[in-house]
Amino acid sequence: MAIRMYDLIEKKKRGLPLTKEELFQMIGAYVDGNIPDYQMSAWLMAVYFNSMTDREIFDLTEAMALSGDTVDLSVFGDRSVDKHSTGGVGDKTTLIVAPIVAACGGIVAKMSGRGLGHTGGTVDKLESFEGFHTTLSPEQFIAQVQKCGLAVIGQSGNLAPADKKLYALRDVTATVDSIPLIASSIMSKKLAAGTRSIVLDVKCGSGAFMRERADAEKLAEMMVKIGVSHGRKVAAVITDMNRPLGYAVGNLLEVCEAVEVLKGGGPLDLREVCLTLASVMVSFSCKCDIKTARLQAEDVLQSGKALEYFCEWISLQGGNAAHARDPHSLGCAKYSLDILSETEGYITGCNAELIGTAAMLLGAGREKADDVIDPKAGIILLKKTGDHVKKGDILARLYTERENTLEVSKTTFLKALSFGIAKPEEAPLIYKIIGI
Amino acid sequence: MAIRMYDLIEKKKRGLPLTKEELFQMIGAYVDGNIPDYQMSAWLMAVYFNSMTDREIFDLTEAMALSGDTVDLSVFGDRSVDKHSTGGVGDKTTLIVAPIVAACGGIVAKMSGRGLGHTGGTVDKLESFEGFHTTLSPEQFIAQVQKCGLAVIGQSGNLAPADKKLYALRDVTATVDSIPLIASSIMSKKLAAGTRSIVLDVKCGSGAFMRERADAEKLAEMMVKIGVSHGRKVAAVITDMNRPLGYAVGNLLEVCEAVEVLKGGGPLDLREVCLTLASVMVSFSCKCDIKTARLQAEDVLQSGKALEYFCEWISLQGGNAAHARDPHSLGCAKYSLDILSETEGYITGCNAELIGTAAMLLGAGREKADDVIDPKAGIILLKKTGDHVKKGDILARLYTERENTLEVSKTTFLKALSFGIAKPEEAPLIYKIIGI
Repeated sequence: MAIRMYDLIEKKKRGLPLTKEELFQMIGAYVDGNIPDYQMSAWLMAVYFNSMTDREIFDLTEAMALSGDTVDLSVFGDRSVDKHSTGGVGDKTTLIVAPIVAACGGIVAKMSGRGLGHTGGTVDKLESFEGFHTTLSPEQFIAQVQKCGLAVIGQSGNLAPADKKLYALRDVTATVDSIPLIASSIMSKKLAAGTRSIVLDVKCGSGAFMRERADAEKLAEMMVKIGVSHGRKVAAVITDMNRPLGYAVGNLLEVCEAVEVLKGGGPLDLREVCLTLASVMVSFSCKCDIKTARLQAEDVLQSGKALEYFCEWISLQGGNAAHARDPHSLGCAKYSLDILSETEGYITGCNAELIGTAAMLLGAGREKADDVIDPKAGIILLKKTGDHVKKGDILARLYTERENTLEVSKTTFLKALSFGIAKPEEAPLIYKIIGI
Repeated sequence: MAIRMYDLIEKKKRGLPLTKEELFQMIGAYVDGNIPDYQMSAWLMAVYFNSMTDREIFDLTEAMALSGDTVDLSVFGDRSVDKHSTGGVGDKTTLIVAPIVAACGGIVAKMSGRGLGHTGGTVDKLESFEGFHTTLSPEQFIAQVQKCGLAVIGQSGNLAPADKKLYALRDVTATVDSIPLIASSIMSKKLAAGTRSIVLDVKCGSGAFMRERADAEKLAEMMVKIGVSHGRKVAAVITDMNRPLGYAVGNLLEVCEAVEVLKGGGPLDLREVCLTLASVMVSFSCKCDIKTARLQAEDVLQSGKALEYFCEWISLQGGNAAHARDPHSLGCAKYSLDILSETEGYITGCNAELIGTAAMLLGAGREKADDVIDPKAGIILLKKTGDHVKKGDILARLYTERENTLEVSKTTFLKALSFGIAKPEEAPLIYKIIGI
């Protein structure tokens, strides 16, 4: 029997749970264009107020995951692992974590997104390498993973189309900030992408979607529950995003910083988050305990094995291995500007969202989905929260191909920093790990 | 500065009040087609959950009232009075009340609607008279009121267009049942229709939109407040709609019953509700106290003066005065069916909504807005709640022009009645009067 969308809105409005059949029919009819947006947005707002039961969230996620193509990774048995970040500023972890896991013998078959607004996307970062292609056929994708243990491609157009359509609607109807809707949106794509285990990097703080730790934990727990209910192994690492991760924000700049970490150096905060995520992924993919996994991960960083996997990966997907080994050789943006401190004291806060926006204004990100990115644009921070600065010290260096963006970006950047006379307490880098 | 609808949804979602400027801009943009339905429905659902302040409700009502044409009745000073019913089954009160008030010297310049679903509309009932036209120019409308004290026309196409568009959207997004939205919808049309005073008949019970007395009171109080805040005199009479008013349901059948009351007879419940409403209207329009008004109203019924006004009214708007005096002369529907009692006992309940639906199925109402009505179709009840029946007693008689509707209507009708062995307690006919 066909559902009446009116009745489903009314039911949710009254706080009653929808059945699995109702949710599947609703999602199917919405993708087919048989439910108008004005009814779906009313339903979404009712979900915002009345939430959903766990069972409803599981069913909604499944309905969205099955609404389009699904990736078959059964050839890898239960060893395939994916990593997903809820989106941050300067978040280049995939570039580091994926080769670490592959070098440890894990299987990373990953789909990644592009950036929008103040947050960057892994696909954009990888495209800093000339010739790098993020579209592989399913056969090519699997063959590459079999060869070097990792491949990262852009999300297929027909992966979870229900989520795509719903997200676009939520984005214009103020119904994004609902934990059941966020969790089911992310997990529907992860389920469709086919890996047996999933490690979630849930960012928390001013530069992340989840500002409050309690919300980040709720979201993380919900996503783990959804994955587990569908037979996947899932863990979530809640990490700090009150300041950018590392010092580089912008595509090629972040690639350079990632390679520093892969060479055994790089910023400590970035290295630590990457090792934590990689350890969980290795423990899932290689069936070992987390301590062993951590030691292996540190080892492949130290030995240069992870860097070798990185270079092979880039070259297998069409990039130049020499550039991968030394991305600085790709050159630098045409224009740059040093931002000097006008004050003396401690940096007490560093709003990651505003720093992401400042980088976007330079050409490192997209304001609208069809904007074109300049790979070399971005920001190198020289000081971060907790550092002491004197008048005239360089706080950051802006890079752009479009000189006229420097001033507006600088203005935004300066709004991101706050100063004080006392050294601020250090925030933890990793708040919690859920699911292991 | 132009508003962003996204921000207004977000604001209401967070429970914050919108400013008058925001509400006016929102309503203006929505009528102009510059706000999509999917954003408006999300906002409406947020209003359902977070309600509105009194000030917001006053402003929204005003914005909707001013969104199209408004009727200028200043020629009648402060004497024009309107009556509005929230919609019931067998509610033919306007046909009786309007001529009573006019006969007492009051000024009734009224716009009326058509019926939808289980409730009927005054315009449909009036059109049972061949030739009766419900479209008059503003000049004709005023001239007729000056001549005989009353005119009833269909709602102008451009009266409160914002309400029309919003109501259509609420109707398909399960956002009808919000007291602030119901109150502002009704009152926006009443304010635009221009009378200085307004008497509201708020129906309460199984056949009405407000099932619970507490909700009916809340709605009534809110509407009175809205009207008063815009300088109108407003009263609300809360009347019972747990059973149909009178015995006739269906357009011409109701006209016949109304004329019986105008001749000094007719069902006592109908007569009493009409006299109560008419008294309040007369007291507003003729500036007298409610007791004097009541005596006058009873007097014009008894003397036949109200019937004379009724006949003049019908003939001035194109109907036949002889038919008005004796509407039975218009004939009877082709097919009829007696519904016999299959049980013995007291009728303990009489679901007015189901009786309205049974009448609609016979052709007396519209399922969809463009359905055509058969004036002669409908139901005459022979027994109502509290009556004792024996097996084989006639409970009701169905009338239709379409023989094949009789059985399905009968099935629906029988669901409306419940029987018991004890005589049920009599429910009050009039619960409360607010605003006098």
